[in-house]
This record gives sequence, structure tokens and C-alpha cells, in this order.
Amino acid sequence: MKEYVIGIDIGGTFTKTGFVDRNGEIHLENSSPTDPYETVEEYIENLVSILKKAEKKLEKPYQIVGIGIGAPNGNYHKGTIELASNLKWKGIVPFTDLMKEYYELPIILTNDANAAALGEKVYGGAKNINNYVMITLGTGLGSGIVVNGNLVYGHDGFAGELGHVNVEENGRLCGCGNHGCLETYVSAPGIKRTLFELMSNDTMGSDLVNYTYEEMDAEVIYEAAKNGDPLALSSFEHTAKILGRVLADTIVTLSPKAFFFFGGLSKSGDLLLKPTKKWMEHYSMPLFKNKVELLPSELKNRNAAVLGASALIWNEIDTLK
Amino acid sequence: MKEYVIGIDIGGTFTKTGFVDRNGEIHLENSSPTDPYETVEEYIENLVSILKKAEKKLEKPYQIVGIGIGAPNGNYHKGTIELASNLKWKGIVPFTDLMKEYYELPIILTNDANAAALGEKVYGGAKNINNYVMITLGTGLGSGIVVNGNLVYGHDGFAGELGHVNVEENGRLCGCGNHGCLETYVSAPGIKRTLFELMSNDTMGSDLVNYTYEEMDAEVIYEAAKNGDPLALSSFEHTAKILGRVLADTIVTLSPKAFFFFGGLSKSGDLLLKPTKKWMEHYSMPLFKNKVELLPSELKNRNAAVLGASALIWNEIDTLK
Repeated sequence: MKEYVIGIDIGGTFTKTGFVDRNGEIHLENSSPTDPYETVEEYIENLVSILKKAEKKLEKPYQIVGIGIGAPNGNYHKGTIELASNLKWKGIVPFTDLMKEYYELPIILTNDANAAALGEKVYGGAKNINNYVMITLGTGLGSGIVVNGNLVYGHDGFAGELGHVNVEENGRLCGCGNHGCLETYVSAPGIKRTLFELMSNDTMGSDLVNYTYEEMDAEVIYEAAKNGDPLALSSFEHTAKILGRVLADTIVTLSPKAFFFFGGLSKSGDLLLKPTKKWMEHYSMPLFKNKVELLPSELKNRNAAVLGASALIWNEIDTLK
Repeated sequence: MKEYVIGIDIGGTFTKTGFVDRNGEIHLENSSPTDPYETVEEYIENLVSILKKAEKKLEKPYQIVGIGIGAPNGNYHKGTIELASNLKWKGIVPFTDLMKEYYELPIILTNDANAAALGEKVYGGAKNINNYVMITLGTGLGSGIVVNGNLVYGHDGFAGELGHVNVEENGRLCGCGNHGCLETYVSAPGIKRTLFELMSNDTMGSDLVNYTYEEMDAEVIYEAAKNGDPLALSSFEHTAKILGRVLADTIVTLSPKAFFFFGGLSKSGDLLLKPTKKWMEHYSMPLFKNKVELLPSELKNRNAAVLGASALIWNEIDTLK
């Protein structure tokens, strides 16, 4: 009988779902808005109706073996979503408990970057790597840490928030309420903030002076950098220097074999990863120099979040065997 | 039959050994100089002759079940000591292989801070804690990281070098060759360097102006701080601020339940830990505030390194059961 895991990726704007089989094929993919629902109960009611409707289209016989969920500030231990600043539901939401009113299945929830890290292990480039860190670069910087083949959840279930390492005393205001967090510098909005900071000092003859702050985004900076725009290139260099230093600190802490990069900004490829590697080696303790690889994720971008969420269940099944 | 593990703690100056039983009692403790031996082979020959002589005094019948070794830059995976800057033996020393010429026993080697971390789990305050970090404060800053009840060795066996996190761009020269490493600020020599840096700006009416750099040490600063000396207190405050920030970064990475502190400088107790806690909370991401404890090690200082080394074997035996 064919087995599927329901993978759910809850983002601030869209929720993506799919029925993922053993080989990482996603069936009946769906994307629906996350934010029209005032309460989490209404949201879940709608989500379940979408899933039940889709499930009818699966070829019989089949079995759903579990539900994996990636969500911002997802707490693996408790199945809760806690203090997520880009979701409407405030406080501590008992998400898996609410889902269990509809499904009698194993349900596992964690944050989206942890899910992506596990996706890399089950379906991507980390199949044979037991110690690595996944970095997701989008509107924020997420991370999922794998040690001895297992995700690190930590004491309270929230480990792997490298985006909130402090990189600058009294630095930029972060969504978490602190100042100077890594993700205020290294993320799509972060590189834009860096560009405007650099521009305020020296425009370097860049054409980017013709964009408003509102019009500017990481894509524009990427295209300009590809065409040799000095201000755009300098923005990548500054971003890479800060990221490289944090990677060097992560290396002395965890000694991973590799960092994987996933998400919007990481599509900049060598424009970001080459200078990041240079600065990482610059800051690295001699014992660790030239040992750690920076690799693009092998998950296809389109579906990686849903794949990663489903990997939460497949990995658990593998571990129990 | 009574079982013992031989615990060996290799320091830059002294090597300490003992026969540790199941309850953490150390029998036939010994301390001998590490540095008179030009080659590691001579050193081991002497070490083994000390151990064999001592073993004769053990009450029969008994069994030696293994040898645990804590050493600077000890590589758990390979049993080697690599590029240790405070030992005479240069390059990569195949230490456990050399020991195996004398003993047909399980021999496990790791760095001293990892050994101390495991000692805390087997004999100290971490018996019921599965996620924590041990910080050893002496002439350097060592750390041992425990995740899900297991030490983190990382891909190459050297994980847990928090002393070499970069805390200051172009900062103080470190023994590792880099600049700005945490241990150049937070360690016994580190607080002394901070004191002289602060003194060069403002002596604050401190009596410590009467000490040469050569005469000054962490003990003197501690005693002065206890008596309210403003320069000494300021040195602790500066040290605590830097340490607190790195602990906050470690929390977002690993989400430990506690940090344990061990070693010379940690004897300063609340003088160091109270301001460190304050700064750690200051820098912590809101999600993690007021969740993580700072605790003094419950290992007795006298013998903790040997205890920790023996715990490497006892823990392995427990895990295999």
C-alpha cells in the first residue's frame, strides 16, 4: 500500500501543503493564504477541509502515516507555535493538539528551518553527513542544526535560532525586539538595509540611487551586482563578512562538516557564498581552517518547505526501525 | 570484583592521574610534571611506570575497565592530540595508539573541557540535565557541549571551542594565532589584561596601581574586588559583559538548560556570575529570556579533571548497557 505523509509549511502569508511519498514526490500540492483567519481554530478548520478534499483524489489503496508541520517559532517538544511575530495568532498556540481533533495520526511540528534541515538529510545533499547546519535566507535568517544525525531542539525545543546571534552592539532593530541580530544584516531585507547604509556614505556612482527604499529589494541588488555595480557588490561583501564571522563562531562551537544554504537570498549563489567563504576562513580558528564546506541546498526551492515538513515524519519512522 | 577506570588529565605543566571507582572515589592520586620530556614516547614511558607502580597498591581482586584521558586539543575520533600550543609535542600526536602499546584496554581521549562536562553528568550537578554547556575558566576558556545527553564532538572531533569565538574585530592576540578570541578576555589572564586596559584609561583611585604586570593575577583582582576596589569591580563587569553576550549567542544556537562553570576564575563565584547573568539576559532573544541557569560545577575542584577523564569510560559503559 502506498504511504504518504502530509507536509504543511505555515508561512506568514501562505500555507503550503502536499502529500509526500517515500521518494519525495509531492502529490496534490496546494497553496492558500494564511492570514484571512482571525483565530487559529478557523484557520485549522479551513486547512483541514482543503486537505480532506485533496485526499479524496489520492489513488487507492493508500495510507497516511503522519503529518509534519514547519512553522515559525514551532516548539518541537510541545507542538506549539509561540510568540510568532509574523502570524496573527498571539501567545502560545497548541497547534498539534488542535490538529489532533481532526486526525488520529503522529503529528510533528518544528520551525521551518529545522524542517528544511531534515529535508536536506532525507531528500537532499546531507544524506551522508551527520554534522551540518542548514541556513535559510529569506525575509529572516533561520537555521537548523544537525549533530550526530539528529536535529538539535535543545532544552525548550527552540534551538537553532542563529538569526538572533548578536553581531553588533546597539545594532539594527530586529523583529524579535532586540538590536543587532544577525538576520537584520544577513537576509533579503538586511542586504537592502546595508545598501542604503553604504549609499548614505558613498554612492560610488551607482545607478541604484534611482530606487526608492520601497522599490528596492534583494533581487534588484543581485541583478546590479551581477552587472558589476560597485555599491551592490559592496553590499554583498559587507553581508558576507558578517555572515562569515558567525559561521566561524559556529564552527568552533559545533565543528560541522558543511553549511547548506536555502531560500531567496541564497539564490545569489557565488555572489554571496564566495565572499562568505573567504571571511569564514579569515575568522576561523587555525584548527578548523579549510575544513568546512559551504553548499547550496539540493532541495528544489519550489517544494522544499513541504518536503522538509514531511521529512519530520519519515525521519522518525526511519529512526524507530 | 571492584572495577576502576584510570583517569588521566594532561595539563601544560602537570599530569594528574588516579584510579576512579564507580562512585567517583579517586584512589592513588598522583601529580607529575608534564614538561621534562622532550618526546611524547619518553613522557608515556614515565607515565606508564607511575601507573603500573601505583596499580600494585590496589586491593585485590580488581579490574581496570578502561583509560580516560583529557588533553588540550584532544581529538575524540582519532585519539590524537593536535597542534596543542601549551604542550612540547608538536604536530599531531597519536596518543591513544602509543598508550595501546602498554595497555589492552578501551582508551578514550578528548579535550579537558569535554571530559569535565561528562564528569558533571556522571558525578556532578548535570545528572538529570540532557542539554547543557560546561565552561572551564582557567588560563584559557574551554567548553564541553552536551546535546540530548551526549557530548558534541562534531565532524572532526574538536567541537566545543567556545574560547575561540570572535568577540572583538582585530582584538587581543590569542594563543591560537587569531585576534579577538573570547578567551583573551574571559580567563584568568584575560581579566588581568582587561584590568590593565581599564587602568590605562582611568585608575579610579585603585590600589592596584602598585602591582607590576608580572605580579598581577586573577587572585589579586578577586581579592581587591571583594574589598570594593572600583578598578577590580569594573574589570569583572567588563569580563561579564563579554561572557554574557557569548552565552546569549550560545543560547539561541543550542537552547541549553544550564551553563556550568568550573576552574580557577569561576571560584570568584557571584562576583563573576551575577553580572554575567545580568548581561546574558540583556542580550538574550526574548524567546529565551529567564530560562537558562548559570551554575557552579558540583565537581570538587581538586580532582575534577581526573574524574571527568574517567567519566569518558564510565559513560561509554553506561551507554552500551
